[in-house]
Amino acid sequence: MTSSGKLKVGILGATGTVGQRFVQLLADHPWFDIAELAASDRSAGQPYERACRWKLSTPMPARVKSLIVKPPEPELACDLVFSSLPSSVAGEIEAAFARAGYPVISNSSNHRLDEDVPLLIPEINADHIEIIPVQQRRRGYDRGFLVTNPNCSTIALALALAPLHQTFGLRAVMVTTMQALSGAGYPGVASLDIVDNVIPYIKNEEEKIQTEPLKIFGALTDDRFVPASFQISAQCHRVNVSDGHLEAVSVKLERPATREEIIETFRQFTSPIEELRLPSAPSRPVILKEEEDRPQPRLDRELAAGMAAVVGRVRACPILDYKFLVLGHNTIRGAAGAAILNAELLKAKGYL
Amino acid sequence: MTSSGKLKVGILGATGTVGQRFVQLLADHPWFDIAELAASDRSAGQPYERACRWKLSTPMPARVKSLIVKPPEPELACDLVFSSLPSSVAGEIEAAFARAGYPVISNSSNHRLDEDVPLLIPEINADHIEIIPVQQRRRGYDRGFLVTNPNCSTIALALALAPLHQTFGLRAVMVTTMQALSGAGYPGVASLDIVDNVIPYIKNEEEKIQTEPLKIFGALTDDRFVPASFQISAQCHRVNVSDGHLEAVSVKLERPATREEIIETFRQFTSPIEELRLPSAPSRPVILKEEEDRPQPRLDRELAAGMAAVVGRVRACPILDYKFLVLGHNTIRGAAGAAILNAELLKAKGYL
Amino acid sequence: MTSSGKLKVGILGATGTVGQRFVQLLADHPWFDIAELAASDRSAGQPYERACRWKLSTPMPARVKSLIVKPPEPELACDLVFSSLPSSVAGEIEAAFARAGYPVISNSSNHRLDEDVPLLIPEINADHIEIIPVQQRRRGYDRGFLVTNPNCSTIALALALAPLHQTFGLRAVMVTTMQALSGAGYPGVASLDIVDNVIPYIKNEEEKIQTEPLKIFGALTDDRFVPASFQISAQCHRVNVSDGHLEAVSVKLERPATREEIIETFRQFTSPIEELRLPSAPSRPVILKEEEDRPQPRLDRELAAGMAAVVGRVRACPILDYKFLVLGHNTIRGAAGAAILNAELLKAKGYL
Amino acid sequence: MTSSGKLKVGILGATGTVGQRFVQLLADHPWFDIAELAASDRSAGQPYERACRWKLSTPMPARVKSLIVKPPEPELACDLVFSSLPSSVAGEIEAAFARAGYPVISNSSNHRLDEDVPLLIPEINADHIEIIPVQQRRRGYDRGFLVTNPNCSTIALALALAPLHQTFGLRAVMVTTMQALSGAGYPGVASLDIVDNVIPYIKNEEEKIQTEPLKIFGALTDDRFVPASFQISAQCHRVNVSDGHLEAVSVKLERPATREEIIETFRQFTSPIEELRLPSAPSRPVILKEEEDRPQPRLDRELAAGMAAVVGRVRACPILDYKFLVLGHNTIRGAAGAAILNAELLKAKGYL
Repeated sequence: MTSSGKLKVGILGATGTVGQRFVQLLADHPWFDIAELAASDRSAGQPYERACRWKLSTPMPARVKSLIVKPPEPELACDLVFSSLPSSVAGEIEAAFARAGYPVISNSSNHRLDEDVPLLIPEINADHIEIIPVQQRRRGYDRGFLVTNPNCSTIALALALAPLHQTFGLRAVMVTTMQALSGAGYPGVASLDIVDNVIPYIKNEEEKIQTEPLKIFGALTDDRFVPASFQISAQCHRVNVSDGHLEAVSVKLERPATREEIIETFRQFTSPIEELRLPSAPSRPVILKEEEDRPQPRLDRELAAGMAAVVGRVRACPILDYKFLVLGHNTIRGAAGAAILNAELLKAKGYL
Repeated sequence: MTSSGKLKVGILGATGTVGQRFVQLLADHPWFDIAELAASDRSAGQPYERACRWKLSTPMPARVKSLIVKPPEPELACDLVFSSLPSSVAGEIEAAFARAGYPVISNSSNHRLDEDVPLLIPEINADHIEIIPVQQRRRGYDRGFLVTNPNCSTIALALALAPLHQTFGLRAVMVTTMQALSGAGYPGVASLDIVDNVIPYIKNEEEKIQTEPLKIFGALTDDRFVPASFQISAQCHRVNVSDGHLEAVSVKLERPATREEIIETFRQFTSPIEELRLPSAPSRPVILKEEEDRPQPRLDRELAAGMAAVVGRVRACPILDYKFLVLGHNTIRGAAGAAILNAELLKAKGYL
Repeated sequence: MTSSGKLKVGILGATGTVGQRFVQLLADHPWFDIAELAASDRSAGQPYERACRWKLSTPMPARVKSLIVKPPEPELACDLVFSSLPSSVAGEIEAAFARAGYPVISNSSNHRLDEDVPLLIPEINADHIEIIPVQQRRRGYDRGFLVTNPNCSTIALALALAPLHQTFGLRAVMVTTMQALSGAGYPGVASLDIVDNVIPYIKNEEEKIQTEPLKIFGALTDDRFVPASFQISAQCHRVNVSDGHLEAVSVKLERPATREEIIETFRQFTSPIEELRLPSAPSRPVILKEEEDRPQPRLDRELAAGMAAVVGRVRACPILDYKFLVLGHNTIRGAAGAAILNAELLKAKGYL
Repeated sequence: MTSSGKLKVGILGATGTVGQRFVQLLADHPWFDIAELAASDRSAGQPYERACRWKLSTPMPARVKSLIVKPPEPELACDLVFSSLPSSVAGEIEAAFARAGYPVISNSSNHRLDEDVPLLIPEINADHIEIIPVQQRRRGYDRGFLVTNPNCSTIALALALAPLHQTFGLRAVMVTTMQALSGAGYPGVASLDIVDNVIPYIKNEEEKIQTEPLKIFGALTDDRFVPASFQISAQCHRVNVSDGHLEAVSVKLERPATREEIIETFRQFTSPIEELRLPSAPSRPVILKEEEDRPQPRLDRELAAGMAAVVGRVRACPILDYKFLVLGHNTIRGAAGAAILNAELLKAKGYL
């Protein structure tokens, strides 16, 4: 803990696209203080300013410029770590940190579906953190543990589904995504591949979207997760947009609902953890746009500081029940911001 | 008819995005010769070279440069007219031409759903042209008549559905489109609206896609069209692509099929009108790409000179039966090329 | 004046691209309060929320949503007006407002070169406001007057030239611009014209850039402006960028300078009006980037809240003396922000 | 030589962006036949269809699909090689091929400025091939030799300068480039770096443009090149365009000329090697567009099959003498097409 009473945090994968968002969003955080930056690439040993090709349109925070990037090994001087390591290495490194006593708040996909790791969206399944003692017991962790947030497309989708799931129940969800370039990291998508083009394939993405929501909306019962039972079908595309995943959704509900009820349900939805006043929690997790041509990535991705799911165009579906759009900022609510909100929940609940 | 035995054609709406494609595609046509250019805007009276802001990457054909653009009134010296007039005026003008004895081959939406007008895709419903004598009788037309082609998104979708409809039957079709800018004409979409963005709304487009295929796949029985009975649900988006509509499709079939059967059905599909050897007919109306990330607009829209539907990524759908992609060149097969192919069918069948 | 002591301002052309920036930048201004919105288009009579297709990524300020858009006639209840009217109407309307007693702070081009109207960049020629009493006397204006800011490309260029002009003198300036889409207003550039393209022509732009700096860097002597005498040559292009004009500049100086001196001159340059502490003035009007590949529009246009000229890549020119880049946010420092800064100067100097 | 009398050619670097253009342009060449494909990456040993991620919008030619990609070693069964190897390896490999008896027609930069290697643009300095015997003698090459073509930006610039140089003489050339993404190869520029952006830096590019034209326009005298003596200053930028480098040029001439004379000189310019009827030579090496907003990359890059320099907007320059634009297709006339034309010249002149 710092002298100001903040928790000292480390960022694993600090030089990547999501790592930079962590740095940006944590630069003035009221509860957390960036103490350590680590990366698995060849940047270890250099000051962050030199190690990192900063790609955000706000300047690199002055405080982190001279921090020396370290290798991602569990010898960092911090109270917890955020991880956006590439999935090729995240699995083992994150487990090593947890074993060494660090709470690991991960954006990587490796442990998301582990049976004793929460796949956490605080507004939806905050109670899933109660698996943590089970996880620690099973794995022989002492203070350390693993908590994950979902895939960037899943988070926005799940936030939009939450009020429907809660009020009407879900039977089936069809989703077609139009995903932003930043979701592929840096250098990521080659410009020649996307200029005047759409790429209709993102590796493993459809599988993640078809799986993760079932754990998120599942119940934690008798120390295990019982997945939700609705069906999901996803089709994923990369479009020429810098930030902001747009998703065209169609849902079949358990119980009948009018269009007005759907709209009212989106409008009324508030976060069940509102009273915790988490610093990064949006005042409304779902924002309903009423214009006929919204949400749009460039115009709406920054709403609620990029932490809300922006919904629009609710209308009847001739095959399932209702169609609508949802937009989420993929590197904020879909990645770094999601992990930070998870850490805030854990802090508020006494896990940190 | 010209001295070379070609039919003289007029183009209504010749200065627009689709009008320019008509001019480009008809410049060296073996059966048709551009004799008249007409436009409803203020360009009438000027030579085409001056009246038209040519936006295609092949040069304006030399022959048409000095043609004087005329008002779209039925006093043109030609054997038939192609129309890509804006829908605000197309309805009446096209009817006036038909009444005055001109076969009208239209790309406009106004008469598509008229009960006595063919909504024609030669590879699917060539027999629908048999409604023409009925149309002429009912409307009191002499030599003239109206024939339409479907909406740009509908054509590519319908071509891809054709082999499935024929072999397995269709119960339901969900489609999410990512449509090109040229579909909105010129000036069309403002650049500020699409840079770093997706626009999730195209006026009337979802309605057209949900309606037109039912007429196309319907039967002509006792001088009337009996629509097909499957369900269609469409979600339409404009993306930052110049040409080529990409569509993510999921279908429920009447009869069970394996993935291999679906693929084989796409591969085997040949045009029932192949033996007519129409000059603009693609040798295969459906092209199956096998790469995991295709079709892509920039790489595949020019296949088969832009006249085929390019299909890819066939895979099981957890909710309906199968998912796949289809791409079509929206101003060629989706507009001007479709109308020209329709005219070729009519010529081959003795209607011109 | 409002009860809080702020000046009440009207915005002429409030629904356009620059008008929206005025609304955004004035929403929380410490000295000015938006009291009136006017537009010359058909939006008059409607509440702003309905009249305006808001295109900025921050939401429309709540306070202005219900303001009724008025016709741009000098009956507005405000202490001064900002104008971003289209140049087709700005000339007469602005003069009418000035005649009716309103200070008019204009971004339009019509009066920029009038011999008694300041073409103002506070950091460069703040003393030019002393022409105002002359203007009022000559034109018979009472309280009203006209003040203009330069063209969007000129402002960034002039700010970058200012330290060089002041320290070494200027003989010749060659500039090639790569200008953003928002500079053309809305709908402005058609998306089909700019996708995968550059448009090497912007009407009247080269003339403005070749003329305006001479007045800006000129002297106000004996109640008239004596233009500066260096040569300027401009080549203007539109590129596929939403905001931020990038300009490649080469200069010939009056007096010799080393590269290090040039760089130091950029670094040391401070605003001569710094002590006025104008709310919108950037702490440094010129920001020097040292990376070899900066400034870049997307990464650097928001520096200093979009109010600075961002300079980079200073290097010797084999033909003139030195080459460098300058980037300016065209709708902030290049338009609305420039006018607001002008108004702040006028207020600080007692003209409002 | 093949049975059809064509020369058998190998392509070094066949899987890259320029390598693919070589394959595309040579697929139906009347004089050359693709016999060997080689690449320095890990693709050797695989059939070309598998080794190469084909990125052109025309399909991969059927004939080359099954050709096995070989390592770039001088054991290829062919009469000459084209090279688009990366400059990190091209220098030594190309020399090894020349030493082993292969004529090497290279697009790589390594040997361009070697004092005994032609930097060839057939329409400008066809006589420079006479250095070849000198090169062979000096280097001890037997049949083999090295010939290079200039950098992609240089070629279009040089073609546009040629008529001016010939008629009026050149004193100084300022050029600002807006270069296409394909110039950086594949994957090349990251999409996140160019979306809504311009990158004002291309490594070594300004140096190449400032140097290469002097050799091109130089004289071959007494077995050595005497460079031309005018000054060149270049500023280079990457813009969001797939193909086609646009360059804004200003020139100072040796002898006075009116604008009409400049225009007429562009119009009259014909290739001095026209009578050789080289298959890839454009009928006019310089095409003058007269519209006020041309040339544009997307609309004009395919003119003359991408083999011409397209010039436009000739106007007086207040600092030097005249300003104009030039556009060239960077992977056709600026790379693969340039090398092929060089090979055609060598064949016509008996060097192959």
